[in-house]
Amino acid sequence: VSKTSGSARPQAATAADFLIASRQCEVRSLEYFLLMGRLVQSSGHLIHELQRERGISSLYLGSAGQRFSRERAHIIVQTNERAELFNQALRDIQHELISHPVSSPLLGHIARALHALGQLEAIRHRIEAQTIEAQEAVGWFCDTIHQLITVVCEAADTVVEPSIAGLLVALVQVMTGKEYCGQERAAGSTGFAQRRFDHALSRRMMHLVEAQDRCFDVFVAHGPGDSLALWRQLRAHLRELEIEQLRQMAVSIGPYKPLAPELAERWFALMTERMDDLKTIEDAVESAFHHRCVERYTEARRSLADQATLLASLEQNVQTSRSILDLIQEQNRRLQQMSDELQFAKEALEERRTQEKAVLLLMEHRNIDDDEAHRLLRKLAMDQGKRLPEVARALIATANVLI
Amino acid sequence: VSKTSGSARPQAATAADFLIASRQCEVRSLEYFLLMGRLVQSSGHLIHELQRERGISSLYLGSAGQRFSRERAHIIVQTNERAELFNQALRDIQHELISHPVSSPLLGHIARALHALGQLEAIRHRIEAQTIEAQEAVGWFCDTIHQLITVVCEAADTVVEPSIAGLLVALVQVMTGKEYCGQERAAGSTGFAQRRFDHALSRRMMHLVEAQDRCFDVFVAHGPGDSLALWRQLRAHLRELEIEQLRQMAVSIGPYKPLAPELAERWFALMTERMDDLKTIEDAVESAFHHRCVERYTEARRSLADQATLLASLEQNVQTSRSILDLIQEQNRRLQQMSDELQFAKEALEERRTQEKAVLLLMEHRNIDDDEAHRLLRKLAMDQGKRLPEVARALIATANVLI
Repeated sequence: VSKTSGSARPQAATAADFLIASRQCEVRSLEYFLLMGRLVQSSGHLIHELQRERGISSLYLGSAGQRFSRERAHIIVQTNERAELFNQALRDIQHELISHPVSSPLLGHIARALHALGQLEAIRHRIEAQTIEAQEAVGWFCDTIHQLITVVCEAADTVVEPSIAGLLVALVQVMTGKEYCGQERAAGSTGFAQRRFDHALSRRMMHLVEAQDRCFDVFVAHGPGDSLALWRQLRAHLRELEIEQLRQMAVSIGPYKPLAPELAERWFALMTERMDDLKTIEDAVESAFHHRCVERYTEARRSLADQATLLASLEQNVQTSRSILDLIQEQNRRLQQMSDELQFAKEALEERRTQEKAVLLLMEHRNIDDDEAHRLLRKLAMDQGKRLPEVARALIATANVLI
Repeated sequence: VSKTSGSARPQAATAADFLIASRQCEVRSLEYFLLMGRLVQSSGHLIHELQRERGISSLYLGSAGQRFSRERAHIIVQTNERAELFNQALRDIQHELISHPVSSPLLGHIARALHALGQLEAIRHRIEAQTIEAQEAVGWFCDTIHQLITVVCEAADTVVEPSIAGLLVALVQVMTGKEYCGQERAAGSTGFAQRRFDHALSRRMMHLVEAQDRCFDVFVAHGPGDSLALWRQLRAHLRELEIEQLRQMAVSIGPYKPLAPELAERWFALMTERMDDLKTIEDAVESAFHHRCVERYTEARRSLADQATLLASLEQNVQTSRSILDLIQEQNRRLQQMSDELQFAKEALEERRTQEKAVLLLMEHRNIDDDEAHRLLRKLAMDQGKRLPEVARALIATANVLI
């Protein structure tokens, strides 16, 4: 069992050795986050292309293959490029992930995302041949994108450095909010193309807007300065006003008053611009994450070197016991403080996971769809005057007892 | 930064590779827990001897070096043997801990425990020469034992398998309860030796009894069957009745009514028997932990082998995509369920840590001692009609804002 059992028995490690090891532990995890950063970045890029391919594929199927064929071919090339970069990033980190596995769930979700991506070619052939319903094709893209976001979310959960964890929480929220925006683009396109929104479609639009708002609220609490400035720019853009007007039509116009036919393309164009701007915000968060990793890595290496020098000089001296204790205590205090701060960032991830679980539970047991389950959860929270995560937690706790 | 950057680029891993890696991750962490188990076991043994050495050293100093010299020499030999076994266990796991560090805080606390143990010889010389007050000597033993229990507690925090985490939670509680019992033995010995308990000493006795009860309550919730049977035997033992009578004297007799002189040795003998019985319970929990690790390890290796065979056979087949997805989904569901159960065990550890932090905070800011801080916390809980951990959490949250 022991990896050392075959080798000669090593010298007993001293307090100083474990103090250094504790520092090395930090340096190693920062090295790992740098690799992880590339996986996160390439996931974001791949998701963006999959969202575009989803939109175009839906339009292609909607036009019975008459339009968007060229655009689709163009986007497929780009998606493939991004998928290749994602695979490269995974190849670079897979050795680290598989030989020193940090998280069973992360590996499980990577397996699931890879499995989904393995079906991309087959799905494309069916779209090409129009042997798949638009709804099924869109559903496949949604599931796959959801898997990729879950990989990023699980990756964020393996982070132990609070400032980095906060940035990844912001990143997960932007990615999720952007995905809701992508789904809103699709739902709106359907409604404007058929020149009417039925009750279910209107409600779906409302749900997607609310879900976006929730994500961006959390993003605003954790996001770095650059990205927040970009977010304010996006919000202040004239386009938002026009989107808001179209949204109002989508949720307020009854089924018998046909909408102007040109609105469909306008909606798609506006929302596509919005998605591209959201991608810029995502990139800004990702870049802040990368810089913070590099910064903390340099810092951690320097303090490791400093501490090693200090300990070596202390060990020359007889009166060392106090000074080593001071170093140990200072480090343990710092780790304790980091763990308190980390708690805060992790709670945001935990809340996200709890809500997802509560929604799944409601979907399963009341046989309702995703949107209805979200709405029911919000209603419960309003009725009880509690926060959404609290209601979700209570629901799961009850289910654990009752089911 | 990348460990793979020097080597040839590996083949891209498939969904099946990551599924296997996720299983391997479990097997590796179980291997690690087996090593960790030896460290935990040897910590328990070392703590037991340190508790005995603390008791005898205190009696030796109390008799101005006239008595207990032979007993002390005998126990020192035993403590040294246990310390050597602890060092061996640490040598066996240090490679694993330092090369794939799992937890900065665990390493930091090992450093601190090793640093404390490094002072043992010097403390013993001062006791031998009677150049140290009994209170300071006892204080040193208490701190060192506390450090060793903290190592076990941090080790428990790195465990991701719920059934194993529950056993470690039970173990930490038995160890902590036993340590309070050891401190009660010391406080009672002081009172019975001086034939009176002043107000402060009576209150300390009460606090130590309550603190023990809290620990054993949590132990009863998580402990394995064998150890619970031993616990019931201990509680039903006639000795408990006699201890209870002596406790009543310690907390109810005023300062002017001298106690019978023979009570001191009787108290020490009874509490020493009790400590030995608590050690038997601790060993039973430790043994259940070890067996569970071996069992889960065997299980995990078997399912890894089964799954590898299954995946290999699936990959021969064209219609694999559904079956691999089923495997992935089943595994992710299992991991999710494990993580829910784990949450429950971790909360017990987190509550312990939160209470310790709240007590430290009160000690620091109100300039009171450990017992008074515990009492104040209990009073706050009673006044507000809330659970102790809730009050502790609220206190820390407020302090984070106010300080």
